[in-house]
Amino acid sequence: MDYSNKFVSLLHDLKLEGRYRTFVELERVVGEFPKAIWHKPGGGKQDVTVWCSNDYLGMGHHEDVLAAMHDAIAREGAGTGGTRNISGTNHHHVALEAELANLHGKEKALVFTSGWVSNLAALGTLGKVLPDCAIFSDAMNHNSMIEGIIRSGAERFIFRHNDTAHLRELLKSIDPARPKIIAFESVYSMDGDVAPIKVICDLADEFGAMTYLDEVHAVGMYGPNGGGVSEQQGLAERVTVIEGTLAKAFGVMGGYVTGPELLIDVVRSYSASFIFSTSVCPHLAAGALAAVKHLKSNPDRRLKQQANVKMLKQLLSEADLQFIDAPSHIIPLMIGDAHLCRQASEILLLDHQIYVQPINYPTVPRGTERLRITPTPDHSAEDMTKLVNALKDVRSKLGWSYVHLAA
Amino acid sequence: MDYSNKFVSLLHDLKLEGRYRTFVELERVVGEFPKAIWHKPGGGKQDVTVWCSNDYLGMGHHEDVLAAMHDAIAREGAGTGGTRNISGTNHHHVALEAELANLHGKEKALVFTSGWVSNLAALGTLGKVLPDCAIFSDAMNHNSMIEGIIRSGAERFIFRHNDTAHLRELLKSIDPARPKIIAFESVYSMDGDVAPIKVICDLADEFGAMTYLDEVHAVGMYGPNGGGVSEQQGLAERVTVIEGTLAKAFGVMGGYVTGPELLIDVVRSYSASFIFSTSVCPHLAAGALAAVKHLKSNPDRRLKQQANVKMLKQLLSEADLQFIDAPSHIIPLMIGDAHLCRQASEILLLDHQIYVQPINYPTVPRGTERLRITPTPDHSAEDMTKLVNALKDVRSKLGWSYVHLAA
Ligand SMILES: Cc1ncc(COP(=O)(O)O)c(C=O)c1O
Ligand SMILES: Cc1ncc(COP(=O)(O)O)c(C=O)c1O
Repeated sequence: MDYSNKFVSLLHDLKLEGRYRTFVELERVVGEFPKAIWHKPGGGKQDVTVWCSNDYLGMGHHEDVLAAMHDAIAREGAGTGGTRNISGTNHHHVALEAELANLHGKEKALVFTSGWVSNLAALGTLGKVLPDCAIFSDAMNHNSMIEGIIRSGAERFIFRHNDTAHLRELLKSIDPARPKIIAFESVYSMDGDVAPIKVICDLADEFGAMTYLDEVHAVGMYGPNGGGVSEQQGLAERVTVIEGTLAKAFGVMGGYVTGPELLIDVVRSYSASFIFSTSVCPHLAAGALAAVKHLKSNPDRRLKQQANVKMLKQLLSEADLQFIDAPSHIIPLMIGDAHLCRQASEILLLDHQIYVQPINYPTVPRGTERLRITPTPDHSAEDMTKLVNALKDVRSKLGWSYVHLAA
Repeated sequence: MDYSNKFVSLLHDLKLEGRYRTFVELERVVGEFPKAIWHKPGGGKQDVTVWCSNDYLGMGHHEDVLAAMHDAIAREGAGTGGTRNISGTNHHHVALEAELANLHGKEKALVFTSGWVSNLAALGTLGKVLPDCAIFSDAMNHNSMIEGIIRSGAERFIFRHNDTAHLRELLKSIDPARPKIIAFESVYSMDGDVAPIKVICDLADEFGAMTYLDEVHAVGMYGPNGGGVSEQQGLAERVTVIEGTLAKAFGVMGGYVTGPELLIDVVRSYSASFIFSTSVCPHLAAGALAAVKHLKSNPDRRLKQQANVKMLKQLLSEADLQFIDAPSHIIPLMIGDAHLCRQASEILLLDHQIYVQPINYPTVPRGTERLRITPTPDHSAEDMTKLVNALKDVRSKLGWSYVHLAA
């Protein structure tokens, strides 16, 4: 077996398809967000305006968050030195978990090293410990949920994206006595559309299913306390498990699930990816706690973000730049071809000091390649005008003409 | 389906077996390591000496590490706000990866959110992309490696722990043309024993296999630069992939793999758990980098730890307290019963202000329950005497009499 040859050909495949990923090396600068310094591949640096960050509200640079982190490091040091069970439970974890449970109106919360791991752990465990469990999974669910569902070994039923009629059909098709979980997201991060949470909860009641809602792209940003779309729509109570990340609107790192005490205790007690991994650093928990608290009592950054999203959509429309007009903060500017998408991103970076990463397969389906634009509260009106002018320039250079909007 | 009832009974099972986990809530105190403040379940606090931390060298409190973290937070903020591909690659990641590759004498390194995820990602990807791959896995491999191997879908051959004759038999049993990976650890964390790395590399050469070595419990602690047991034994060059954590001897959080450029690029390009998760915070990379650098040029903490391990073993022997006398820094004090083990830990905590977590199934096989003791460079001679006296007290109270040492 010639391993190198095989590796070369695997990488070659990606390059041919235009989806070989070249990382853009950034240096963030506190106080300058959303600007950053790009370290160029050949050496040299250049200022850029970042338009594709999931630090949606700029909390990764917020003074409360940074102060909480500095303080926790100064007092308690860096890592925990242990898994949660073996010397790695810290009082900051406990405080953060209480706050997150409260945020979502749930009995308990459990923090993980990432949102990815939280989905793997929770769905992987629930689908496994419930005998003969059936999991109903939205067709557009994030990779981490899919991995959890596969890992659980439970039977998986995939319903067409946001299609509750199809979901009902599938729920009806199996033995009513079987345990059931409906797994879905609130804001789908690549199209920016939102799930019909109420109808799904109604179906869950009707068929005796639990609901598992990934609010990764909504926590901190929707609802009066930043509890996500489920809070905004007054439905949090009806959802069994709400999962979120500490790494996007909360600006730090880590993930979590919240839900009924017994359920969370089962995940805590049975999930390998939780049990066998060093816990999150105390200062990350402290920083995330500060972010959650700030966004609970201060809607300013949320509101400013929403205003910016509205304004940018307006400018894009006026320039006849086609995007998916979704109800959330995410603006997918459709290109529809992997190579063109990559070139568009390169022109933006090299000619306009604007960084928007091209989004290609497997993150989105082939043929729906896009520039995924995320306005933050810190983008100025001038930043927006510059972006729109740059996009016009790219269009004139590349002449892309995406017409078929993703469903 | 009554979900609550099912959850109650799942938790009840654990309680009956004595392996329901109650987390010990700690507050670490910079400058006081290995002492910490225990937040008691009913309220109130108590000082304890921690004897079960995997912050093996106390680097989680080291001034270089903390200074690097403070500095990076002050300059660059908290999280990255993105996956590595989408605005989440930071110059600290790049610097750390270069340093880790250098530490292990490899072409490239890739950093993950945890060691757990690095094993899942790397083994999961390699076993999947190599057609008809066979993975040979040591029977005592860590959960994260097992999860990676299962996830890969590759055929798995489990060889008896450290049994190279058995490994050879299994390697011989399959088509020589098939791609093969031998996955094993250097220091096995629960028994403290060490793998026959050289013989395994010889077998790998003979049968055309790649080797994948988890050095999670060895990096920072063995070898002139802290490159692990493979460095200590002059074998790093012969191992294909070396995997490690940033969360134990390096005192922070995160994981990594190092290896040939093409292989690392394949993992980077194909691994879902890497692609679809927010990257490690820049300041964690900066802190880990400081730890790696310090331990490269300063053997002091390593040597002090080794001296302390030796001294504690001596004291335990003199007190006729039975432990596995392994060649590493880990001292498993055998109890052999889940309930007794838990009680022993409780007496230590409540009567002696000593915290050693009981280790029960599934972390170790049933019947080999133990107190796993990890001396650090910062435990004093007095700490050791206190520990041994406390253990004598526990023995007189519980009268445990473990005789059958784990193989
Ligand atoms: C819907 C969804 N769930 C979960 C995750 C994983 O969260 P994290 O980045 O904290 O690992 C992501 C992306 O990062 C996501 O988009
Ligand atoms: C052998 C081994 N590999 C990997 C891991 C996972 O590393 P991390 O704690 O960084 O997730 C552990 C334990 O934590 C381990 O013991």
